[in-house]
Amino acid sequence: MSTEQQVLDRIERARRRRPVVREERITLAHGSGGRATQTLVQAVFLDAFRNPLLEPLEDGATLRLGAGEEGVRVNLAFTTDSYVVSPLFFPGGDIGDLAVNGTVNDLAMCGARPRYLSAGFILEEGLPVEDLRRIAASMAAAAAAAEVEIVTGDTKVVQRGRADGCYITTTGVGIIERPVTLSSAAARPGDAVLVSGPIGAHGAAVMLARGDFDIEAAIVSDTAPLHGVVAGLLDALPGGRVRTLRDATRGGVATVLNEVAAASNVAVVLEEAAIPVRPEVTGVCELLGLDPLYVACEGRFVAVVDGDHATRALDALRAHPLGEQAAIIGTVAPEPAAMVLLRTAVGGTRVVEILVGDPLPRIC
Amino acid sequence: MSTEQQVLDRIERARRRRPVVREERITLAHGSGGRATQTLVQAVFLDAFRNPLLEPLEDGATLRLGAGEEGVRVNLAFTTDSYVVSPLFFPGGDIGDLAVNGTVNDLAMCGARPRYLSAGFILEEGLPVEDLRRIAASMAAAAAAAEVEIVTGDTKVVQRGRADGCYITTTGVGIIERPVTLSSAAARPGDAVLVSGPIGAHGAAVMLARGDFDIEAAIVSDTAPLHGVVAGLLDALPGGRVRTLRDATRGGVATVLNEVAAASNVAVVLEEAAIPVRPEVTGVCELLGLDPLYVACEGRFVAVVDGDHATRALDALRAHPLGEQAAIIGTVAPEPAAMVLLRTAVGGTRVVEILVGDPLPRIC
Repeated sequence: MSTEQQVLDRIERARRRRPVVREERITLAHGSGGRATQTLVQAVFLDAFRNPLLEPLEDGATLRLGAGEEGVRVNLAFTTDSYVVSPLFFPGGDIGDLAVNGTVNDLAMCGARPRYLSAGFILEEGLPVEDLRRIAASMAAAAAAAEVEIVTGDTKVVQRGRADGCYITTTGVGIIERPVTLSSAAARPGDAVLVSGPIGAHGAAVMLARGDFDIEAAIVSDTAPLHGVVAGLLDALPGGRVRTLRDATRGGVATVLNEVAAASNVAVVLEEAAIPVRPEVTGVCELLGLDPLYVACEGRFVAVVDGDHATRALDALRAHPLGEQAAIIGTVAPEPAAMVLLRTAVGGTRVVEILVGDPLPRIC
Repeated sequence: MSTEQQVLDRIERARRRRPVVREERITLAHGSGGRATQTLVQAVFLDAFRNPLLEPLEDGATLRLGAGEEGVRVNLAFTTDSYVVSPLFFPGGDIGDLAVNGTVNDLAMCGARPRYLSAGFILEEGLPVEDLRRIAASMAAAAAAAEVEIVTGDTKVVQRGRADGCYITTTGVGIIERPVTLSSAAARPGDAVLVSGPIGAHGAAVMLARGDFDIEAAIVSDTAPLHGVVAGLLDALPGGRVRTLRDATRGGVATVLNEVAAASNVAVVLEEAAIPVRPEVTGVCELLGLDPLYVACEGRFVAVVDGDHATRALDALRAHPLGEQAAIIGTVAPEPAAMVLLRTAVGGTRVVEILVGDPLPRIC
């Protein structure tokens, strides 16, 4: 059984590992969300900014804020993401609702109720004002659907050729109303691994929208706000039975689970046949030589829960429209530590590495 | 005398004005911080996102957050800014400390004690990793100096030619510990207008650092965290005697005061001879055909205070190292409403318009 001390020990070990960036210049892989991103963040940013709130490198930071002398405390989640998706508009969404849903989801992964967003726009000279209006309307609709308000912002313009239409950075504040202890370092042997729905649609939809491939497929992004389905899960499994929540964005389910396996020092064993992927997504991935396990979702999350309550967790997810096709996809084992294994449909077992390189740049 | 109802009436009038973006495409002027930015923000973003917290369009939003059932409330300031300054490194600072100080200052302008920052990085493929290290180190030093922690972040990479080295969006959370009612709409006739130090050094330093002009001048950016000097002012003039605080960034002192004059429906009358500008900044501005009143500062702010306490306000500013050269630069008059006038050194009076166009793109 994993105690708080063991969790702290793991973080401390990760800290001492001190990764090194070997490249002299930034490459697209540094933005993949996979190994190169991890190394860059740890070697450059964590090394410079080091503090206990940043250290766990979760989807957001948990702030315990006081109100003056009375000893009053409010627990907040605080998270930021920059969106550079190309193209700006794609089937099922655009950079606007992506930027709102992505930050709403990071707050949800901290167990928080999303409340307020800020939005920083970097616009390229020449962007059609009509495109910006569409993006703003899409953000407003997504914010209304997620019950958050966009309360402050900033707008910068750079010369033609110094951006790509529009980049948006959204930052969110949410209130942590439940006593949650969610952490990537909290998975333990015997836990169950679930995913909230079919994976890989967002990445596949964006790739096809670029028009670089002569492929026709009716794939729409899965971009959606996850706070509702998460709330249902947390209500169904109180008392720390939900160990870890991670939305499977850049790097996909494979990368997220590798991070959980490493942080928790456990093995994650996946059943290939149990992982929901829509046939059209499988088809496109085969044509493009991609493994859906590495393709970004923007409306799906992975949950690690107490194995004794796996069915209850599944029922809670399926009770919500965004979790109707949720599935139990694997279990947590003690060994081999810090690894993700996949039991394939034909009976073999292979190692699922963290994403290396970036087959899908600018997917979010 | 200005009542809360009058302030609300002014906001309502501004709301009904419904500005229109006449351009079909985004221009650099939309990022100037002047009239075109104002129009874009009101016509596109405010129109789409409209809510009472965003509506005043101040430097940040004030959030009143509750903690569960107990009726406990914490007042937070929440603000975001994207930084696209070119070049990344300039005398007196770089994009890193600028991004920290700028957000710290927006929190300070809300009367908050800055606490936590997030940082979203958009990196261009090919950026030297060593440059990123320098920027991160500079952010860390600025955060330490401002007593804030960078607690969460995000890193994206875009292809060569889709950014300009590095853009940073910082978002800040601060705690409002004093009962402040700061607003651009709160200035009233009889108030005094102060500036915390010599203006225009940041913009002049960045312009020279671009190397487009054959001018040698020892000008360093004024980038600095202002929360300390602001706290001294608020302590010296409690009870609503400080009406408005605005840091004079894009668009400079002229633009900020035009916004105050319009929001408060008053005239601001400036004494040219009283406005502190370093001789080397004056010299460079003359050579470049710029008016220092429109040149960005990143460590200076304008304060509108109760006229009966102007001297006390000046003493409070001068008591802090970052306010040593503070000055009373003008007064608030009832007429002509929504205008800024400048009484020149030779005895004339001219209108100081809000910034139109963008003579200094990508200054912050």
